[in-house]
Amino acid sequence: MTDTRPGSIFQTVRSVFFGNMGKGKVTRDMILGKAAALFNSRGYFGASMSDVMNATGLEKGGIYNHFPSKDQLALEAFDFAFQVSSAEVARHLNKRERAIDKLMAFVDAFMSVASDPPVAGGCPLLNSAVECDDGHPEMKIRVQKAMDTVLATVEKLVENGISEGDIKPSTDAQQVARSFIATLEGGIMLTRLYSDLAYMHSVATSLRNQIKAIQISS
Amino acid sequence: MTDTRPGSIFQTVRSVFFGNMGKGKVTRDMILGKAAALFNSRGYFGASMSDVMNATGLEKGGIYNHFPSKDQLALEAFDFAFQVSSAEVARHLNKRERAIDKLMAFVDAFMSVASDPPVAGGCPLLNSAVECDDGHPEMKIRVQKAMDTVLATVEKLVENGISEGDIKPSTDAQQVARSFIATLEGGIMLTRLYSDLAYMHSVATSLRNQIKAIQISS
Repeated sequence: MTDTRPGSIFQTVRSVFFGNMGKGKVTRDMILGKAAALFNSRGYFGASMSDVMNATGLEKGGIYNHFPSKDQLALEAFDFAFQVSSAEVARHLNKRERAIDKLMAFVDAFMSVASDPPVAGGCPLLNSAVECDDGHPEMKIRVQKAMDTVLATVEKLVENGISEGDIKPSTDAQQVARSFIATLEGGIMLTRLYSDLAYMHSVATSLRNQIKAIQISS
Repeated sequence: MTDTRPGSIFQTVRSVFFGNMGKGKVTRDMILGKAAALFNSRGYFGASMSDVMNATGLEKGGIYNHFPSKDQLALEAFDFAFQVSSAEVARHLNKRERAIDKLMAFVDAFMSVASDPPVAGGCPLLNSAVECDDGHPEMKIRVQKAMDTVLATVEKLVENGISEGDIKPSTDAQQVARSFIATLEGGIMLTRLYSDLAYMHSVATSLRNQIKAIQISS
């Protein structure tokens, strides 16, 4: 197996032949991070390549060196933003053991995204879904797949909660997952529209009550 | 009182002095309707003045004759889109007498907006809220005010439902209103992302159950 760790013989030899690939990766990730924040805040159409140049401090060629087009940069920036936001959700979920508690932690995670977005601009799923629903077929498929994983995660938590004897077996896991995510994303929308966390608090309280309503009282 | 009806002496005299104002109004409304559909579908940044020219069949001057800037056109197009969408909601609510039934009708109204949007592009509140939350302060205030009226309508329905003895008096009207609208807007987002009404059906079923949960069983 090739040792690709920084400082390994492979990396040293590769650097000689192909230049400093490590630095290229750092630049690439820096562009992705800046572009993700820009597109997530202002939208794909609202942010121009000039904005990306300003944010990264790179010339146009320096960006096109890593991404062949604005489209490609936007797609990868969405993936990046989704990964960062998912990691924040996972961080909350991993603190808990039982599925019912993870479901509650999901609400906490969205509260955290609303109060201190891991990527500037709020939830990349919401922003990209709303912007791409009338066009951008490639981005739409990308967002659908990301949303699929979020919905499947919640659905699985409900199913596990049933298996673990904490959630009523009559619960429709798919319906709960869809309504749960719709409510959280709508809560983020209201919170950002009013720049007021009170909206997310209302939505979170309502969702916690809904979780309690499907819970088997101990 | 001046008789401003079409064909009145006032209108005839005005036409002589100021030209055919009626036609001007018709053109203005046509521009608003086309611009509302464009901005609601593609966003403020996604739709250009060239797109508005194409959709209306007018030259740039013909549009600037009625709207001094793209900004002003976007603001008035949002008002127009919100009025048209609100009328669709009102049509559903007016069919019912009691507040609790009007609350159920609110869900039907959003189902109708999701399945056959009165303005192309879906819900103007959701689209404009998401696009303007990181900038466009004038549009943000406009959307906040529109959202205020929607939230106040739902809150008032819950309060009236309590007064009419249909809803449990312990219900937090503000919290229900915020969660209700967040869920409906999130439902529209999912439905449009997947181009599949099944998502709105799931959300609607969940909301109807939530209304039943605060209802005093007869």
